[in-house]
Amino acid sequence: MTFALNAAVSGDTRLFAIVGDPIAQARSPLVFNEIFQRMGVNAVLVPMQIPAASLATAIAGLKTIGNLDGIVVTVPHKISMTGLVDRLLPIARKVGAINCMRRVESGEWVGEMYDGEGFTRGLRKQGHEPRGMSVFQAGAGGAGKALAHALSRAGVKALQLIDVDRAKQDALIAELAHAYPDANVSAGSASPADVDMVVNATPCGMAAGDPLPFDIARLDRRVLVADIIMKPERTQLLCQAEERGHRIHLGRHLLENQAEIVAEFFGIAHG
Amino acid sequence: MTFALNAAVSGDTRLFAIVGDPIAQARSPLVFNEIFQRMGVNAVLVPMQIPAASLATAIAGLKTIGNLDGIVVTVPHKISMTGLVDRLLPIARKVGAINCMRRVESGEWVGEMYDGEGFTRGLRKQGHEPRGMSVFQAGAGGAGKALAHALSRAGVKALQLIDVDRAKQDALIAELAHAYPDANVSAGSASPADVDMVVNATPCGMAAGDPLPFDIARLDRRVLVADIIMKPERTQLLCQAEERGHRIHLGRHLLENQAEIVAEFFGIAHG
Repeated sequence: MTFALNAAVSGDTRLFAIVGDPIAQARSPLVFNEIFQRMGVNAVLVPMQIPAASLATAIAGLKTIGNLDGIVVTVPHKISMTGLVDRLLPIARKVGAINCMRRVESGEWVGEMYDGEGFTRGLRKQGHEPRGMSVFQAGAGGAGKALAHALSRAGVKALQLIDVDRAKQDALIAELAHAYPDANVSAGSASPADVDMVVNATPCGMAAGDPLPFDIARLDRRVLVADIIMKPERTQLLCQAEERGHRIHLGRHLLENQAEIVAEFFGIAHG
Repeated sequence: MTFALNAAVSGDTRLFAIVGDPIAQARSPLVFNEIFQRMGVNAVLVPMQIPAASLATAIAGLKTIGNLDGIVVTVPHKISMTGLVDRLLPIARKVGAINCMRRVESGEWVGEMYDGEGFTRGLRKQGHEPRGMSVFQAGAGGAGKALAHALSRAGVKALQLIDVDRAKQDALIAELAHAYPDANVSAGSASPADVDMVVNATPCGMAAGDPLPFDIARLDRRVLVADIIMKPERTQLLCQAEERGHRIHLGRHLLENQAEIVAEFFGIAHG
């Protein structure tokens, strides 16, 4: 009964929330509350299940709560929430989505997008500096977009993108080319080769019988194989890559590092 | 660092809140979270500081949160909140105030007032059955009103009321006479006698130099002396009463029992 330990929330506890729908699966409460605990901060992050249709009403209400200092934003609200903050910070403006918002001293709520930053910080912490890498990425949806933006900002040498939805793929390539004029972004093939890292940013691999999101047969053994799926921790892609002798990079590094970055954004220094 | 223990709030934790302004002093989070812990319920009650001016906006927002099951209402919102629930339950209708609200199966939010019930249940638990008692009460404000209603419902034989604000006193006497036609309610004197219990429902006694809220010189030693002030636990009234040989009844019994009753209202059976 680990959930019993919340008896320590008191009247002067500061409040944070994660809003999404559904929300029961969200790991952020455990991750953030562990950070608050480690840092000795009297704060709690609670889950709030808010349907898309009531998001505007809900956020108008939440903004009036004096001791609510910040909100983590998850599916399906990352894009629509951009219209409900008072100001977008630079990455959010480029990506067109936010994953967190907080009240600043003026009383305004500002939003920013750190999903991709969680991935690149996670890579660096595991010893894989993205700067100068040639990267292949599958997936141009919400998560893929955040990743591709972060990889572009991190200074990858080249970025090849694929998505089963060709229109989405081409739109993201055009968007990145516009946002980062120096970036070298192009359409990839379903069987990548000649890259330093491949990453899966599609949902393919969450379900047991899923096919691989792309073929890894042509990859040199030195290529890093990354996935952003958290459950299972070792997707079919990662298992096969490991068997073939590749180094792999797990999805949980993204969440852990994204939470750390958002905690910093919330004003919780980390140690 | 007891506040560190909230690391166990997870994505599927059910949410409760206490709304008030200020809120940092509220003891309900500790009391309720202890109840949730004892009952093995995966729920947390968090403080929300909401200014009176934004109450309607805040509540409209909170009602949209799917995993928010109930709200404890405290000062200054107990009266204004009656206009923000979908339906008032019987005591709330009589008292004209609520101290808690919850979502029922239809999706409606219903409000009820259990402040007074906390006092009468507390009395009973300490072996003091209010039915048939002659009671003197000082204070006809929000708390006094809830107490007088609960004592009337509990079937006291007679209820004498005083308040420094004579208009408030007379209004409450008239209100009780109307709500409980069988009740025997009258104006008291500042030096009560010939009663079974005296209770202080004024704020007088919270500050160190406060005078007694009423004189206890004429009271028989068998009279029970009660206070609803929680800090200090032993008010000047209770100290002097104890010295004179009276049995006393502490303010914390009200909060503890009110929390238990509200937890039942929230659907958390207690053991």
